[in-house]
Amino acid sequence: MIDAGRIAGVLAAVRSRRPLVHNITNYVVMNNTANALLALGASPAMVHALEEVSDFVGISNALVVNIGTLSTPWVASMKLAVEEANARQIPWVLDPVGVGATRFRNETSVDLARMKPAAIRGNASEIMALAGLSGSRTRGVDSTQSSEAALDAARRLSRETGAVVAVTGVVDHVTDGERLVSIANGHEMMTRVTGLGCTATALVGAALAVERDRLLACAAGLVFLGVAGEIAAARSPGPGSLQVHLLDALHALDGQALAVRARFG
Amino acid sequence: MIDAGRIAGVLAAVRSRRPLVHNITNYVVMNNTANALLALGASPAMVHALEEVSDFVGISNALVVNIGTLSTPWVASMKLAVEEANARQIPWVLDPVGVGATRFRNETSVDLARMKPAAIRGNASEIMALAGLSGSRTRGVDSTQSSEAALDAARRLSRETGAVVAVTGVVDHVTDGERLVSIANGHEMMTRVTGLGCTATALVGAALAVERDRLLACAAGLVFLGVAGEIAAARSPGPGSLQVHLLDALHALDGQALAVRARFG
Amino acid sequence: MIDAGRIAGVLAAVRSRRPLVHNITNYVVMNNTANALLALGASPAMVHALEEVSDFVGISNALVVNIGTLSTPWVASMKLAVEEANARQIPWVLDPVGVGATRFRNETSVDLARMKPAAIRGNASEIMALAGLSGSRTRGVDSTQSSEAALDAARRLSRETGAVVAVTGVVDHVTDGERLVSIANGHEMMTRVTGLGCTATALVGAALAVERDRLLACAAGLVFLGVAGEIAAARSPGPGSLQVHLLDALHALDGQALAVRARFG
Repeated sequence: MIDAGRIAGVLAAVRSRRPLVHNITNYVVMNNTANALLALGASPAMVHALEEVSDFVGISNALVVNIGTLSTPWVASMKLAVEEANARQIPWVLDPVGVGATRFRNETSVDLARMKPAAIRGNASEIMALAGLSGSRTRGVDSTQSSEAALDAARRLSRETGAVVAVTGVVDHVTDGERLVSIANGHEMMTRVTGLGCTATALVGAALAVERDRLLACAAGLVFLGVAGEIAAARSPGPGSLQVHLLDALHALDGQALAVRARFG
Repeated sequence: MIDAGRIAGVLAAVRSRRPLVHNITNYVVMNNTANALLALGASPAMVHALEEVSDFVGISNALVVNIGTLSTPWVASMKLAVEEANARQIPWVLDPVGVGATRFRNETSVDLARMKPAAIRGNASEIMALAGLSGSRTRGVDSTQSSEAALDAARRLSRETGAVVAVTGVVDHVTDGERLVSIANGHEMMTRVTGLGCTATALVGAALAVERDRLLACAAGLVFLGVAGEIAAARSPGPGSLQVHLLDALHALDGQALAVRARFG
Repeated sequence: MIDAGRIAGVLAAVRSRRPLVHNITNYVVMNNTANALLALGASPAMVHALEEVSDFVGISNALVVNIGTLSTPWVASMKLAVEEANARQIPWVLDPVGVGATRFRNETSVDLARMKPAAIRGNASEIMALAGLSGSRTRGVDSTQSSEAALDAARRLSRETGAVVAVTGVVDHVTDGERLVSIANGHEMMTRVTGLGCTATALVGAALAVERDRLLACAAGLVFLGVAGEIAAARSPGPGSLQVHLLDALHALDGQALAVRARFG
């Protein structure tokens, strides 16, 4: 049973162990991702060169791979970093941003999904595209599908890849192919801030670094962001303020806030 | 006649149609650009790899090409994306950041300006450099010329390239070679926030996606930013706050604010 | 003797001369770095392509080289830009982010440190790694050493390279191998905002552009950031707010604030 108490335990572990989270992520969100990880209590690093990703994975506690602004040299680095992470049993999480929009994204995402990610996080369109469901059509990086509609796809993708799969939306769903956790935190205004999906993935990475139950770790990452986002939205007249208050709220997050606010579906 | 009512019509169209705006832009402003487009009501994407720009242009409603941190592989992607946009009659806007400062910027800007952009936006130094006026000397990315001084250059550049040309400064001037719209919105503190010129170009892109009258679309993009910037500056003790409040103000922008505040020269 | 009055003189010089600071820096901090330089009163530019770095250095007043997200093509550009800066006697500052973490960072940092930087700024782990001290082990980009422990390494590095060396931490130490300035400004919450070390380096770059006494210039850059950070922290419930208020505080900084707050160790 995943509840607020166990989620608070993951938060405490991040705070005390301060995991080094290695990100190979997109240009748009690097700053936000680093700040969100710092605000939560983790130690972020952005390192992408083929010459050093293996060395850097070796000193990291988790790896985040996000294809938002992918290019051929970066994909090569992602694959090399993933191989090293797997060899060292360091958990890694895949964010297949915009999969379904172009062949390059499709091929890269499928390749990476086959390389044993501990977790995959996407919106409904992305998870449906990655699971190979026909009928899904990704429109840029914003979802055209509800997260509910992607639930079957998520279960299938989880069974095929061995990853815990998280579909985020108005309600987030996390599944290991058998178990399901649904999370109803968050706020509509979060969709008007770029890269909060990427932030969710990075927080999942931090949680995976300290928690072996991957379903719990994924749920924890999403609850951290959803609860902090709600707190921030209540103080924010618009999305500019929200981004600022979100970092403050992540920094101030504690077990009590999680106990009061975490909402499971 | 371009007035606040027609500008409000463009805003309403962006909000209802939520155009997908494909940006090939510089590293410094990617996050801000994405957030400004989201706050306005558009759907941004940053995609630059040669392997996928053509695919992505095909699902986009407008393309923004900004050379701020250009490099040879990115220039190749810009040109390929532009060719695809032209083949599909998708409007694209050029931001020749820093043209005049280096030969590489000059050659790239001239090449791109010849590829039939729907619009070109720059500061006075940039527009004068691009129009090939002697006597202009670009100093980094900040303008050393007033926008008035660039007006003749803008008209000439517009006639040569077929683009609507916007010169932004204390007063912004937009011309299609014949007609002229001047806009007196904005605030001096906006010059102390990086990349607000780039943001202007991106908002012009969003407007071009929904409005066929290119002079109106360019004016609309600049009025959106100028009015939101004024509202934000009134609440901001400094440029850090301004950047945050600007996104809030873009998000809250409506026809009434435009009617009260838009100032044409 | 370095005191608040001389630091205020450097600030006034930045404000009046508005130096163009050319940055070849990492993706994570480009936006913040540009905004911090603008808020202080300098004119930033981010330019990295091999085709244009020499041209751009030629119109700049200082060069900042930061290896945070290095890759082979960027390292080539850094070296070319440095050669041009040296040929033109334009001061340049090195930020060896994460040196000690990978061989690629080590080799690049050593190569650059031998190319006559006017200044080098790093945290204690980085300065100790770069000075070749055994016993130091860099953990990602966050320091595992106190700045005091790195003082001997800093002195040695300064004598070997000819650079003024700044070790930043709870107390910052700046040395030219003989003289030492220690600065006790700043706030613990600044360590939860990404890239403030990189911002320190960029502000040092702006100061070097206007001040020939390199020890004074380095101390000035660190005092600017430390004092502004203290002012910002006093208004900030968390690191998101701090980043915003820091830019406001840099913009509002004046001789009086420096006189009241600058603390030398």
